[in-house]
Amino acid sequence: MFAPSERAGGHPFGIHRVRDTKVRLPQAADALDNSLPIYSNEILIQVDLLNIDAASFVQMEKETGRDPEKIAAIVMENSRTRGKQQNRVTGSGGMLVGTVTQIGKKYKGPLKAKVGDRVASLVSLTLTPLHLEEVKRVDLRTHQLAVTGHAILFESGIAAVLPKDIDEAVAMAVNDVAGAPATVSALCGRGKTLVVIGGGGKAGVLSCVAGRQKVGKSGKVIAIEPHPGAADDLASLNVCDAILRIDATDPIAVRSGVEQATRGKMGDIVVNVASVADTEISSILSAKGRGKILFFGMATSFTKVTLGAEGIASQAVLLFGNGYYPNHSKFALDLLRKNKSLKKLFYRRYGVN
Amino acid sequence: MFAPSERAGGHPFGIHRVRDTKVRLPQAADALDNSLPIYSNEILIQVDLLNIDAASFVQMEKETGRDPEKIAAIVMENSRTRGKQQNRVTGSGGMLVGTVTQIGKKYKGPLKAKVGDRVASLVSLTLTPLHLEEVKRVDLRTHQLAVTGHAILFESGIAAVLPKDIDEAVAMAVNDVAGAPATVSALCGRGKTLVVIGGGGKAGVLSCVAGRQKVGKSGKVIAIEPHPGAADDLASLNVCDAILRIDATDPIAVRSGVEQATRGKMGDIVVNVASVADTEISSILSAKGRGKILFFGMATSFTKVTLGAEGIASQAVLLFGNGYYPNHSKFALDLLRKNKSLKKLFYRRYGVN
Repeated sequence: MFAPSERAGGHPFGIHRVRDTKVRLPQAADALDNSLPIYSNEILIQVDLLNIDAASFVQMEKETGRDPEKIAAIVMENSRTRGKQQNRVTGSGGMLVGTVTQIGKKYKGPLKAKVGDRVASLVSLTLTPLHLEEVKRVDLRTHQLAVTGHAILFESGIAAVLPKDIDEAVAMAVNDVAGAPATVSALCGRGKTLVVIGGGGKAGVLSCVAGRQKVGKSGKVIAIEPHPGAADDLASLNVCDAILRIDATDPIAVRSGVEQATRGKMGDIVVNVASVADTEISSILSAKGRGKILFFGMATSFTKVTLGAEGIASQAVLLFGNGYYPNHSKFALDLLRKNKSLKKLFYRRYGVN
Repeated sequence: MFAPSERAGGHPFGIHRVRDTKVRLPQAADALDNSLPIYSNEILIQVDLLNIDAASFVQMEKETGRDPEKIAAIVMENSRTRGKQQNRVTGSGGMLVGTVTQIGKKYKGPLKAKVGDRVASLVSLTLTPLHLEEVKRVDLRTHQLAVTGHAILFESGIAAVLPKDIDEAVAMAVNDVAGAPATVSALCGRGKTLVVIGGGGKAGVLSCVAGRQKVGKSGKVIAIEPHPGAADDLASLNVCDAILRIDATDPIAVRSGVEQATRGKMGDIVVNVASVADTEISSILSAKGRGKILFFGMATSFTKVTLGAEGIASQAVLLFGNGYYPNHSKFALDLLRKNKSLKKLFYRRYGVN
């Protein structure tokens, strides 16, 4: 039988594929080597779908006037010049779906997959070597791109075999943001008040559902969502005590809305999953003085958070949202399995009909 | 007696002085109204010293080739066009020292001061209305500027009356970074391992001293500091188990250095107080898989932290450093009072001789 060729000496973090002159990890690198054959500790994936992260997609929409062909051209150019899909403005990436075509003989990473399995990457596209031959379709509704090409998974990277019972495009949409509901669930406890900034988006809806489970009837889930369609979708799930249709970039309006909805108590936990800039202060002002605020939105600015909190002498715990949480993919997919309305909503929004 | 004039209707957060067309808090605003008279809930400060934050000062040094006159011109231009000192590139500010000259009749904020008291602001310059008449001197060594002008403190803002037993320039240098040692102290416990990225800087030295007190003899304090002078200064305090003279932008070197110094255990708590960019991954790789990582450096990038942690499936708790912590000014000044070598070091570095 023909054995596919392999190169020796791959680093678990993928440093061997960094093309910058300075020592960097792949995520920080300007350019990656996306060439074949793979190294003996890597996995090769034939890619057919990219899920661009919300902040990056919105930026490309603005830059191109929502022109699918121009967005495709940007992504092709990133693959060609950077060897990966990392937005040059936002710095963020997304996820991919594809088929495993080769597993290096010395691969000892966490992915239990065999050749032929359908998998979704759970590490960001910003650190994943990607070679695109073609972008066949750009879906402005789902932020997903149908493509042909290959990607390489490092030994330290994580991925998930796609479930058989859930549509692939839906599973990818869920996996892309799976860290948010898992972390929200871990932070919430019975009787607590959760405020979700950007509650009608993908991560927002999942966070509201996960939070409701944990805070129980004695707790409160309050969402901020200005877009009528997204707010109506969220309302249909019956998991929120209040959905405030307010622009989250207006800190005074958000503060007074949350004040009213909580009778002045404010949020114990605030999660920011907004995909637009300038929602940091609204998040801080929605929390109790000693609450916890979790920033997942890729448009978050470090200095706006830290200086904003200092400026009003907030004692809140300020947390970076980490896209990884143990078993987050299964946790998030189980939310859909257990909640028919949620599953229906995700199939309608992200499913391939 | 002559009563100084006042305007009515000031908002506690200072929104009444935001000149942007969109509703914003002062920190997020492009420009503030720095005009007099004050509103009745404000405090007027005659300013004589600005302490520029490290990330901002380093950026201005690079932009001007370390030319004091050009740095002065940038700060004057910020005062003129923005009504505050906020670096247009880094978004960060600093602190000020001055004399209270007027207290609004309706002021009910936290500062217990009377007219004539010398005070240091503990909120960032990025949200403080500032009108400069002149920059008299730029000190490249201390990042402090001798100035003439006035600043306005909002009702929600915090400030501290300067201590009588510590040199003003030293006290300001300490206050500028007082949140870091106070937070580090709160996170550390006996027997823990603390890693300080940028340990020889102002915030770094204080964090090492505060951490040493808490981790005790059974714990470890490890500093990363590439600059020989700063590393020697820190070594003279005898608070670190190891000072690694490594470039913190090289994640592989940092990881292997911390591995050696901790015999493979890595840090329970990692605090990043570096003033240069691209030290996020080094911080993540210095921590245990479930450690706590605290980012205080103003050069921190939100996406580099979150995507970097996700990319290597880190389960560490990722915390934004908040410049405010209850009683942080007194806590940090007490470190100097209790440690003669530390006091001597700060007088040498930041004191006016």
